[in-house]
Amino acid sequence: MKKYNVAVVGATGAVGRTMLKVLEERDFPVNNILLLASSRSEGLSLEFKGKTYRVKEAQPSDFEGIDIALFSAGKEISLNLAPEAVKRGAVVIDNSNAFRLKEDVPLVVPEVNSADLLWHKGLIANPNCSTIQMVVVLKPLHDRAKIKRVVVSTYQAVSGTGLEAIEELKVQSDEILKGKTPEAKVYPHPIAFNLLPHIDVFDETGYSLEEWKMVHETKKIMGDKDIRVSATTVRVPVLNCHSESVNVEFYNKITREEAIEILSKAEGVVVRDDPSNKVYPMPFYISGKNEVFVGRIRQDFTVESGLNLWIVADNLRKGAAYNAVQIAERLINMNLI
Amino acid sequence: MKKYNVAVVGATGAVGRTMLKVLEERDFPVNNILLLASSRSEGLSLEFKGKTYRVKEAQPSDFEGIDIALFSAGKEISLNLAPEAVKRGAVVIDNSNAFRLKEDVPLVVPEVNSADLLWHKGLIANPNCSTIQMVVVLKPLHDRAKIKRVVVSTYQAVSGTGLEAIEELKVQSDEILKGKTPEAKVYPHPIAFNLLPHIDVFDETGYSLEEWKMVHETKKIMGDKDIRVSATTVRVPVLNCHSESVNVEFYNKITREEAIEILSKAEGVVVRDDPSNKVYPMPFYISGKNEVFVGRIRQDFTVESGLNLWIVADNLRKGAAYNAVQIAERLINMNLI
Repeated sequence: MKKYNVAVVGATGAVGRTMLKVLEERDFPVNNILLLASSRSEGLSLEFKGKTYRVKEAQPSDFEGIDIALFSAGKEISLNLAPEAVKRGAVVIDNSNAFRLKEDVPLVVPEVNSADLLWHKGLIANPNCSTIQMVVVLKPLHDRAKIKRVVVSTYQAVSGTGLEAIEELKVQSDEILKGKTPEAKVYPHPIAFNLLPHIDVFDETGYSLEEWKMVHETKKIMGDKDIRVSATTVRVPVLNCHSESVNVEFYNKITREEAIEILSKAEGVVVRDDPSNKVYPMPFYISGKNEVFVGRIRQDFTVESGLNLWIVADNLRKGAAYNAVQIAERLINMNLI
Repeated sequence: MKKYNVAVVGATGAVGRTMLKVLEERDFPVNNILLLASSRSEGLSLEFKGKTYRVKEAQPSDFEGIDIALFSAGKEISLNLAPEAVKRGAVVIDNSNAFRLKEDVPLVVPEVNSADLLWHKGLIANPNCSTIQMVVVLKPLHDRAKIKRVVVSTYQAVSGTGLEAIEELKVQSDEILKGKTPEAKVYPHPIAFNLLPHIDVFDETGYSLEEWKMVHETKKIMGDKDIRVSATTVRVPVLNCHSESVNVEFYNKITREEAIEILSKAEGVVVRDDPSNKVYPMPFYISGKNEVFVGRIRQDFTVESGLNLWIVADNLRKGAAYNAVQIAERLINMNLI
């Protein structure tokens, strides 16, 4: 079996470290691994399959001989270095927001639109974490009953911001428990025992970029420009795993029972739906899992055909690292690399 | 000025203690105050206006000579004792779910439907906390543009469950920060750094009673049976103040600018809406306030006329104690007592 030279760009971050873990767990066919990052992390060491690797500052020449480059070091580094990697023959799977809506770049969630990998030109974008977990659940329902409109409210964990935000939530929680005034460094306000309806920057409409990502990326991944999405994104004091309350209106009839049946068979989806017996997806228990969990599946009685859903997934895994590695695996299986 | 004999039933609970605070703050015309509770709290002492009062187990005969009885000791005690209090001439303002949907009981949010106090028969119901804060914001918008449908997702604080839940969140947070396994006593699962899409009991539709309360109480308070409400209620690791992501569809045109203007003038509403400057309502900062705060006001571009709103209020105050005292004040001002 062929093995591949893999570069992980942003290896020291929350997503980068999870990428290394996922590559190990899935026994990805790695020949050589190269750990790259911004200058801030130069010289740090990380483990991969029992060996220690030194992290080096990413340079264009590093991508000589690389087959697959997994980028998760922020938009700037992707804009600068992803084209350099492609130029040198690597296939780039980019986790940033830099290329997602570019027409010649496939935006891929393997369970939904693997076929879009067929037209890749060396660069494939990994969608926004909140969008990924939503479309994995929506796609099989869309195929059955055609989605008209989605109203989504998110409950997003701090791990989506990075390791420093995980630390901030812990430190602030401890400060508040001890009666101290919490200090906010990463977020504009304390996140411990609080909610911030603020993820990414706002535009003149009052929507945040995170909210617009859910609108536009959903249309592109689902391959249907007519799906309307209205989103409100909120940061919550949870360490890891994003949750979403999703209201869906359909063109065609679909019952709660049909939805449960469809989702029970859907790839990458786990149904946890027995609320009377206290069974529903919760972020605390889903951390570390690769699947998307759905529960609280209910008929929406306020429209002719609608459903309410509660969707939870590990944002570092399915929302980022696992989805990226899955894309690499599909590229191999589809002989596209 | 006339003064009133006031009984607080459930005085030792989170809402009862807040009732005493609000009566003090507003200098409510109290002649005598009587602090009642279930047998569990018999013998405890509480302060009111600098004096210490012994709490006694509530009995029917306690309501002899009482003018106003504020109940917040759970549905069972309300079912048993509220009729006894009314029989003895007291006006009961009941915070439980026991009488809210009874046709001969007004369900009142003073900013919305004070006029319903005119037909009270001695018993007035205080609505569910999540519903109160939502309708205070929706009513002025409904008057302008007529609401067709509401999709709401809640982010509810543990104080709504009671003092023991506030303690549980603190203890579990500390346990998790110290690497211990959290123990769940009040809730079916740990709430610290977690989310529970589970408030009150579930029925065969998969909806919880808390969700149905928002559906039915909204119609009754707003006096419009045609308003459709689809709700998902979620407990979050916040100590106090409920937050809500509310999507509203209207029959008539209403712009974001009009909504901001209307809400800026609305009774009991504070607009905090300048997200680019990090201004939006947050539970951590609204604890202790009586008003309902709204921000993140956005046009919903997925329907002909719609808005997205983010609504936060102190659930112990506007969601319970303050609303109850406000009702008592209106009864006095309207000469209905």
